[in-house]
This record gives sequence, C-alpha cells and structure tokens, in this order.
Amino acid sequence: MSDKTSLFQARLKTNADAVEACLTDVLSQAVQPDEIARPERLMAAMRHGVLNGGKRLRPFLVIETAAILGGDPQAALRVGAALECVHCYSLVHDDLPAMDDDALRRGQPTVHVAFDEASAILSGDSLLTLAFDIVASPETPLSDRQKTELVLALARASGIGGMAGGQALDLAAETSAPDEAAIVTLQAMKTGALIRFACEAGAILAGADPEKRRLLRTYGETIGRAFQLADDLLDLTADAQTMGKATGKDAERGKGTLVSLRGQPWAEAELARLVTVATSLLAPFGASADILIETARFVAERKS
Amino acid sequence: MSDKTSLFQARLKTNADAVEACLTDVLSQAVQPDEIARPERLMAAMRHGVLNGGKRLRPFLVIETAAILGGDPQAALRVGAALECVHCYSLVHDDLPAMDDDALRRGQPTVHVAFDEASAILSGDSLLTLAFDIVASPETPLSDRQKTELVLALARASGIGGMAGGQALDLAAETSAPDEAAIVTLQAMKTGALIRFACEAGAILAGADPEKRRLLRTYGETIGRAFQLADDLLDLTADAQTMGKATGKDAERGKGTLVSLRGQPWAEAELARLVTVATSLLAPFGASADILIETARFVAERKS
Repeated sequence: MSDKTSLFQARLKTNADAVEACLTDVLSQAVQPDEIARPERLMAAMRHGVLNGGKRLRPFLVIETAAILGGDPQAALRVGAALECVHCYSLVHDDLPAMDDDALRRGQPTVHVAFDEASAILSGDSLLTLAFDIVASPETPLSDRQKTELVLALARASGIGGMAGGQALDLAAETSAPDEAAIVTLQAMKTGALIRFACEAGAILAGADPEKRRLLRTYGETIGRAFQLADDLLDLTADAQTMGKATGKDAERGKGTLVSLRGQPWAEAELARLVTVATSLLAPFGASADILIETARFVAERKS
Repeated sequence: MSDKTSLFQARLKTNADAVEACLTDVLSQAVQPDEIARPERLMAAMRHGVLNGGKRLRPFLVIETAAILGGDPQAALRVGAALECVHCYSLVHDDLPAMDDDALRRGQPTVHVAFDEASAILSGDSLLTLAFDIVASPETPLSDRQKTELVLALARASGIGGMAGGQALDLAAETSAPDEAAIVTLQAMKTGALIRFACEAGAILAGADPEKRRLLRTYGETIGRAFQLADDLLDLTADAQTMGKATGKDAERGKGTLVSLRGQPWAEAELARLVTVATSLLAPFGASADILIETARFVAERKS
C-alpha cells in the first residue's frame, strides 16, 4: 500500500468511527419531543440495519466535501448520518423476500432474517423518516434555508425520481432486457443519486457558490458511475466471503450490467477514465481536494 | 340530516376535491429538478395507493385549522397533501402480506394485489419521501423556518416515536395482551400522531402563538382518540360493504381494543365526553372554530 493509500484508509476509518458514534447515539436516544414512545424491538431492528460496520462512504463524501469548503463539521457529520440512514433503509427493504431476497449483508443475517419481515419493513420506514428528522433537528447547526434545501435535495435523490425509482427499474430489468442507455439511467438512480447528493450536500451546508456546487455535484455523478461499475465487476469476479454478501447474482438473475454488455476490459478502461474526469473536476479546489481524488481512486479500485 | 351536518358534509367534499386535485397534480408531474426519471409503473402504483376517493380527513384538519388562524390556503393545501401521502403510504405498507395482509381497501384491491409486493413496498417508500419533498418544495409558500418546523414535526409524528412505531406495537399486540395503558399508547402513536400533527401543522403554517398552537395540538390529540374509538366500534358493528374493507378483524386476531376491554356503552359515553373536551378547547377561537366542533362530532359519530 502506498503512503497516500494508507493515509486515505486511515481517514476513511476516522470518519467511519465518527459516523458510527453519531448513528449509535441517534439510534439509542430515549423518546424525543413530539414522540410518544420508542418501541424497543423496532429500535433494535433499526440498529441492526444500520450499525453493521459499513465503510460509510456516503457520509465520508459529505464530511470531506464540506471540509474542503469550510463547512461546519458537526453539521456535516449529522447530514452524513441522515444520508446513511437513507442508504441503510434502502438495503433493508431491498433485501426483503419480495425484492432481492437476500439473507446475508456484510456477513450478517439481514433484518428480515434476524427479526421478521414486518420489522424489516417498519424499521426501513422509520430510518427513512429519521433521516429527515436529523436534517431538520435543532441539533443540526445549519440555517433553516440550508435545511430546507437539504430536505428537498435528499427527497429528490431518494424517491421516485432517484433511488427508489431506480430499485423499481432494477427489479424490472430482471425480466426485460434493458439497453445500455436504460442501464445507465437505472444505475444513476439506484446508486448514483445518493452519491451525487452526498457531494452536493457538502457544498450546500458549506454555503458554496453555484459554480463550486455544480462541480462537486458533477464529481459526485462521476464517482457514482465508477462506484457502480466497480460493483458490477466485483459481482462478476469476487467471492461471497470477501464481499460479505451473495455474489454472481446479476448473471444468475439474467440481469444485464454495463460489464456484461461491454466486457471487462472496457469496464476497467472506463473506470480509469472516470477517475481522470473526477480529478479534473477538482482542479479549481487546489490541494485541499486531494482527499477527493484519493476517494475517486478508492471507489474505482476497491476490492470489496 | 341537520343543516349543520349537511353544511359540514359539503365542506368536507369541497376540501377533499381540492386535495384530490393537488395530489393528482403532484402524482402526474413529469420529472422534477434533481430527479433523473420517474418510472411509470411505480408512479401508477403510487396513484393507486393515494387517489382512491378517501375522505381526506387529515388534510381537512390542516386546511380548516390554518383557515381559522388566517394561514395561506395554498400552503395548507400542500401540507395537507403531504400529510395524506404519509397516511396513504402507511396504508399501503400496513396492507402487505407480512403486516395486516389485507386484499381490499375502500372497496378496491390493495396495491400489492393490483401490482405486486415489491411495487407496494417501493411506492410506499416513494410516497413517504414525496411528503417531505412537498413540504420543502419552492411551490409551498412558507418560510424556511416554517418548513423546517413542519418537516421535523411530520417526521416525529410518522416515525419510530409515532405512526410507524405504533404499527409495530399493533402487530405485537396480536400475540401479547396489552393492558389499557399500552393500548392507549399504541393508538396515540398509530392513528393519533398524524391527526395531532394535522391540527398543529395548521397552527405552524399560520404562525399561531404558542398558546393557540398548544390548544389545537390538544384538540388534535382529543379527536384522534375519538377517531380510534369510533374505528374500534365500527370494526365490531359495521359490515365490510359499508366500510369498504374487512371488518371484525380485531376480534379474529384476538387483538384487544378499548371497546373489547371496557364494553360498548362505555365507549359511546367516552366518545361523547371527548367531543365535549374538544369543543371546550376551541372556546378561545370563537365562532370561526365551529367547523372544528362539527369535525369532532363527525369523527365520533361516523358510520364508515
């Protein structure tokens, strides 16, 4: 491992620990103002779906993007934690028998296996709701203008026109045979939208000017594509133990990916191209954005 | 029917039509800024779950509460529509096989029957997300302060400490045997929280002073209890055709209600008492609040 890589890994770990602490705190709190009671078993299901030692890449992007622009670190941490709640709710629901029907996630039983289907549905619903609670909460040190903007952007990235819509297209893709353009759209929705939001959220909460915000948003789109392409490659080449979840499922389900359409050599060249694009988008930010260049490389080259 | 009752019914209908038009508009729009695409089948499942001719009681409460205090009618309509999206998402998810397993809702096949389970899960998720989108949207003429307050209050009424938590307790109640206090808590969460939010939202969006806000919130809690008590009575006495959904399910599932614990005569007396309490809470608002007194009576006396 190069020095740069090990420094990046250390930073990823530091951030993940901070996010884990924030999420643990939020998911362990007693009943809050305007709440009536917090049923313990449902809280436990929410914790099971969230506190699983993930890499916390999306919060990492919020935190580091905000840091480059001088955003408040506590606000970035909380917005990152909110985003992670959305990401984790989507995994809990996607794993359900009526969706991808997965029993294993990061080497642990999925929520509907460890608890039951109703708890998986309701804990997902509650995590999605909690995300908006965290953004709007008085504990998040942002202006009402910023909170409103973040709520709207998060809703659009997560809902019918973003992640949830992407999952619907992904399920449909098992029986249709989407062409390349359709795959690009569904992947931009299913995984791209939240990664783009992560980078744009950092810009929003740091009060960035429109041009910087646009660059970071495009950076997010670019590494979102790289993330998905790396994921498709890993599904083809990695084993279940390394990934902590079932692999080879795309082919088994007859689901086309860009890798299956264009081949592995193309995918590897495309990944390198996307890292170059991401790097060039960061040029105006100078050396302070080096961490985001490392992130692009990490996303493209990750092995799990 | 008395004059007062028929006037109330006409006002309920006028409001429901306005809410229906607003929801139809929101659920028919093309892709919005920050969205990538809107998959048509998922949009259709969302419309199926929402545009079903409901009474729209919760939006009615937002609109009429706001009107008494001079709130912006368009803002009230949109916040009411957002709240209805939350209510309808909860019905779509509650009807799922893993939850209440209902095939019929307002005389129509439920979403997982008309579409499929994955579409029901994802359309519910998308409706919940859309609710926060509608509140935060630039099309909702409110200050960022009001939007932030509404997002937070809606999240707390809907999530782990409100409606979703209440549904988890309700499912658990089928196998435990909750005492009266536990039933009161679960009902306050499952149905009470959104009705309370409806009334408080009217106060928030009209910029009411804290005392008026507190009174309307307590009014909401009071009619929320009446609503659930009337529902439990109807489940016992009405037939499926009148209700447009399966009845007698509480007893069949061995689920205790206040009616089964305390008996029908007590429940009828309690309903009358709750209407009196609701009426007295409205005294400081004068004649302009007569519509909310009628609403309390309607909620307590409804036959479907």
